[in-house]
Amino acid sequence: MNEDEADADTQGSTNGSGADTDANGAFEAVVETVRSRVDPDPEERRHLREVADRLTDRAEAAATERCPDADVLRAGSTARGTWISGDRDIDIFVRFPPDLERSDLERYGLEVGHATVPDGHAEYAEHPYIKGEVEGFDIDVVPCFRLESATEIRSAVDRTPFHTQYLEARLDDDLAADVRLTKQFMKGIGVYGSDLRTQGFSGYLTELLVCEYGGFRPLLEAVATWHPPIELDPEAHGTARFDDPLVVFDPTDPERNVAAVCSIENLARFQHYARAFLDDPNLEVFEPDDPDPLSVGELHDHLERRGTTPVAVRFDAPDIVDDQLYPQLYKSLEGITRGLASRDFDVFRATTMADETAVVFAELSVFERPAIERHDGPPAHVETHARGFYDAYAGTDTYGPFIEGDRYVTERPREFTTARAYLESERLFDVGLGTHVETALEEGYEVLIDEDIAELLAEFGPELRRYFEPRP
Amino acid sequence: MNEDEADADTQGSTNGSGADTDANGAFEAVVETVRSRVDPDPEERRHLREVADRLTDRAEAAATERCPDADVLRAGSTARGTWISGDRDIDIFVRFPPDLERSDLERYGLEVGHATVPDGHAEYAEHPYIKGEVEGFDIDVVPCFRLESATEIRSAVDRTPFHTQYLEARLDDDLAADVRLTKQFMKGIGVYGSDLRTQGFSGYLTELLVCEYGGFRPLLEAVATWHPPIELDPEAHGTARFDDPLVVFDPTDPERNVAAVCSIENLARFQHYARAFLDDPNLEVFEPDDPDPLSVGELHDHLERRGTTPVAVRFDAPDIVDDQLYPQLYKSLEGITRGLASRDFDVFRATTMADETAVVFAELSVFERPAIERHDGPPAHVETHARGFYDAYAGTDTYGPFIEGDRYVTERPREFTTARAYLESERLFDVGLGTHVETALEEGYEVLIDEDIAELLAEFGPELRRYFEPRP
Repeated sequence: MNEDEADADTQGSTNGSGADTDANGAFEAVVETVRSRVDPDPEERRHLREVADRLTDRAEAAATERCPDADVLRAGSTARGTWISGDRDIDIFVRFPPDLERSDLERYGLEVGHATVPDGHAEYAEHPYIKGEVEGFDIDVVPCFRLESATEIRSAVDRTPFHTQYLEARLDDDLAADVRLTKQFMKGIGVYGSDLRTQGFSGYLTELLVCEYGGFRPLLEAVATWHPPIELDPEAHGTARFDDPLVVFDPTDPERNVAAVCSIENLARFQHYARAFLDDPNLEVFEPDDPDPLSVGELHDHLERRGTTPVAVRFDAPDIVDDQLYPQLYKSLEGITRGLASRDFDVFRATTMADETAVVFAELSVFERPAIERHDGPPAHVETHARGFYDAYAGTDTYGPFIEGDRYVTERPREFTTARAYLESERLFDVGLGTHVETALEEGYEVLIDEDIAELLAEFGPELRRYFEPRP
Repeated sequence: MNEDEADADTQGSTNGSGADTDANGAFEAVVETVRSRVDPDPEERRHLREVADRLTDRAEAAATERCPDADVLRAGSTARGTWISGDRDIDIFVRFPPDLERSDLERYGLEVGHATVPDGHAEYAEHPYIKGEVEGFDIDVVPCFRLESATEIRSAVDRTPFHTQYLEARLDDDLAADVRLTKQFMKGIGVYGSDLRTQGFSGYLTELLVCEYGGFRPLLEAVATWHPPIELDPEAHGTARFDDPLVVFDPTDPERNVAAVCSIENLARFQHYARAFLDDPNLEVFEPDDPDPLSVGELHDHLERRGTTPVAVRFDAPDIVDDQLYPQLYKSLEGITRGLASRDFDVFRATTMADETAVVFAELSVFERPAIERHDGPPAHVETHARGFYDAYAGTDTYGPFIEGDRYVTERPREFTTARAYLESERLFDVGLGTHVETALEEGYEVLIDEDIAELLAEFGPELRRYFEPRP
């Protein structure tokens, strides 16, 4: 691989096809190295299969004992051979006939789960299910209804078996291997995961894309030239209309966009790295960004070099799951930056981060404003409004009213002359904050300005490096 | 008048019709007082008539001697009885037949002028003409062509006799008196004059408006409820289309808007004061604003109270007439404020002033910006541009490129971090400046910031009071 790269360098651009060949060679060399890391070896496969089979048998026995018509299916990447070496999730779906009462389904589900994973505990999603650990594997035992088609589903988990059935029929070993490669690529560039923090590509979506384009490389080549909105419809049955930049109609449900969660940013990022990798194949892109914490000195240097004024609203992170927390943080980020901007505190860039505490972080290009602000009134010819405006402000401690263009204007005292005053005021609660974030802020928050944001480094050193050393 | 006002106050709004009657009384009382000031007394009229007749006779003799077919007309407000007491302009138009050579017209014109006003001197407008003083009156003797209709004119002066003929036929003594009143009202509120500094109402326009509405009061009542664009066409012959907020088709030329110069601001101002005066008639509105110079202490207090940062670009005023100078100053004001704003130095309010020196004055709400600025690139999916942008900035000393939304963004060094640096740079010359202003700036200029603008007070004390104590 190093040799290949050196060759490409030596030949430079003097020979286009030669360089192409070398880029090809480099591509294959990198891919081989990644495969050797992400492909589970025979022992890992054997062990996983052995545990999965044992648990599936247990679940089947426990299920049919309670409901003779029940059956058991494995789902997820370990069922489809698309898991990356080291992933240890085994998902077992217990399907009950659709005429079963929901309360019975839930009761049977928990009983079957406990019988399958004796040390497990119940978790509560749409249905309760059992989660536990067996020989180092993370096991979920999930009850669901067995329906005729995915369009009849009663809750999201009912859909999962359809996905597995669809993909099992299409993913041969080569495609499964390319799914692993693609997942690792997406992890490396930070777009893997349909959780509401990442807003990226789910495993199922990745598998569909690899199937659709026929492998890792053809997928990258297609993505490099994508022109969103992109619409893919593997079963050519899509009926609904979506506004999303990437639409992949679910092969098991013509009304569902598998890529609904994927943000336009992650789509652009995928395009960037697809091009970059095809141009210059390298291993690093497969390695998730794991920055060292930013140091106080580095932070100081960045602030000095940038000349901006960072502000941070810091509060105790609400004790909710990430899929609840991050949408609220994003909403608060949006609301607070809009609030700052609407008071003319120009936001340069902003982000949010959470661990023990949560932070809405905004870097301002304008932290302070004059004591007065313009207040435009109606055109002088709109008589009733014009009279009302003039009478309201004439003789008050505003400047004016005077005429500019065809309108009255006054210059009145500004409510907040610093971003700090705004952030520390009750007005902060006027913007859209998520419920739990709002409650957390009501319990108290801290406003850090300028060099004081160094207080965040102990908890958010890596996040701050990522912020101050941004990459695509 | 004082008694009337007191009455109105006592009755208050408890009796609507009574208050109306009192407002009427107050209106009439104020108007009577103003009339007594602006109407020329018999002695002034007699003296003016005597001088005008004498000069007209002289001009006529000198003109017919050279060209038997010539005749002489008086023009302007003193010819129409619409001058305000104290105005001392006598305009004598010497009309030559249209088949005269232009060179002969110019020669005859100067000879006749000299014969009429022996101490006069030549001035050069479209035609040369003679200007001089006789018994305290300012005399213009202007040659022009006698044409069949105003649509045939060869230069603007040829039109003037048509205006005088049109108005002479329509202005009786009552209307002429109301013209004087209206002119004084417009002078008081600062909208009188079609020069390119004021951009207000010309004498001719004022006379047409008073004729059209039938007097001072009906004009104010109409103006109070105007809804621009307003189109008036006394002769119902208008053909052209104009974008101006006020269009008054010239009764002597269907293709000319008499109000073309009037700014939307002066129109709004006229509406404001028309309403204000009808609501509460008072003498002050007829008195032109003549502010005392602002003191250093007052300036300091305003700056402290406002919290803005004033900046001034000061240079030697180009030695050109006001009608050339002010359009260039307004253009420079527009250009420099746009230049400041485009570098994100937010302009709060701005103005220009001129005497010995000329000043473009801008009050900033943001004087300083961070060392870096955002630079938005193309969407990642526009492949050629995206590659070009990324390659141009990757590995340079900018931050990024990174992805925001669907685009590349970099954060690059800002060209100017203070408004001073911008104003003192060559870039100032990139904006639209008038030719003479540009030359003056090339010869050197001074940039005054913040409290240093106190240096302007000696020359522009009244202008700065008007700026910091704005009125409609």
